[in-house]
Amino acid sequence: MRGKFISLEGGEGSGKTTAIHFIRQWLESHNISYILTREPGGTPLAEEIRQLILTPREEPVNNATELLLVFAARAQHLAEKIQPALDKGTWVISDRFLDSSYVYQGKARGGDTKVLDQLASWVVGDNKPDATLVLDVPVELGQERVVQRQHQDRLDKESVLFHQKVRDGFLECASADPLRVRVIDASLSLDAVQKQIEDQLMQLSKTWSGDE
Amino acid sequence: MRGKFISLEGGEGSGKTTAIHFIRQWLESHNISYILTREPGGTPLAEEIRQLILTPREEPVNNATELLLVFAARAQHLAEKIQPALDKGTWVISDRFLDSSYVYQGKARGGDTKVLDQLASWVVGDNKPDATLVLDVPVELGQERVVQRQHQDRLDKESVLFHQKVRDGFLECASADPLRVRVIDASLSLDAVQKQIEDQLMQLSKTWSGDE
Repeated sequence: MRGKFISLEGGEGSGKTTAIHFIRQWLESHNISYILTREPGGTPLAEEIRQLILTPREEPVNNATELLLVFAARAQHLAEKIQPALDKGTWVISDRFLDSSYVYQGKARGGDTKVLDQLASWVVGDNKPDATLVLDVPVELGQERVVQRQHQDRLDKESVLFHQKVRDGFLECASADPLRVRVIDASLSLDAVQKQIEDQLMQLSKTWSGDE
Repeated sequence: MRGKFISLEGGEGSGKTTAIHFIRQWLESHNISYILTREPGGTPLAEEIRQLILTPREEPVNNATELLLVFAARAQHLAEKIQPALDKGTWVISDRFLDSSYVYQGKARGGDTKVLDQLASWVVGDNKPDATLVLDVPVELGQERVVQRQHQDRLDKESVLFHQKVRDGFLECASADPLRVRVIDASLSLDAVQKQIEDQLMQLSKTWSGDE
């Protein structure tokens, strides 16, 4: 049986790393074989592309360049890592996937949605995630968490307005496709966030096993 | 007045480097301000993308990944180098451009022409070269020249069939758009090749200055 593909989405400082740690424990306690991966990245070449995208640089990065680099990394990630895993029945948990392109390169940078749709249809096709968890926090709270980090990348350094567009963008993804995209209120306590994630995972696995 | 944009195309070992050296002398003798550039590459970021494309690696490179990387580099090259130069009235001479994508990623690797058309329309739009010189040599002759090089990249190492498709592809570009794309017989002596290039440049500059 084909594995399930779950993506985690959210703005800077939304707590994706902690959430992934919890999902990992849940998968292990249910004896589900899985891989953890991330975008942009996931294979050696795709990770090299990630470095190109995230490294702060003097040269202005053209919006189309950024978008095409993200999809180049995604095509490699899908062909060399995600599809082979799903085909073997392994679940794939990805820190970011397609929704991030609509939000960062589309909504936040003003990229053309028609171009995004064409690239998504060509590169991703039917390989959309089976489920997506959006970790939602107010921009101020996300920013507070990011400021505490040692290392900040090119996207962390964007304006508050940019990060507000990112938050709004993910909420729009959830409104547009509520069956796939589920919003987790990540401003609550760690326990309360984990409880929501666990509820979603239980609900999803029931749906997928045909119990509902 | 906007500068003119000329691309040089041809398979491995077709003598592009020598041809560019000659074009440079011609431009200088006519007091035309110009820049020389190349694809993939032409800006620091685009050159980093070039390295990703051309470095031999164990990981199989997905065809869509290669195509998207080429267009990512092209978007950057156009925005940061080619368009600003043309706007200043500077001529741009590029070692490879869009035709190479149709030939290498399309014809030789079997890429979908519809996808190429979409990417070309989105990334290049009206910024096609004003003229393209295709240096044409039989595959065997090109291969002989390449074998003498110290350094061979990922594309040099492809099969003879691949290089035959490349040659055919460039000749098809010329048939499809004969006003823009002119074929130079690069199997002849150095003098005879230079003579053809000079004739083309004279003809083109007459056309562009409205003398014809």
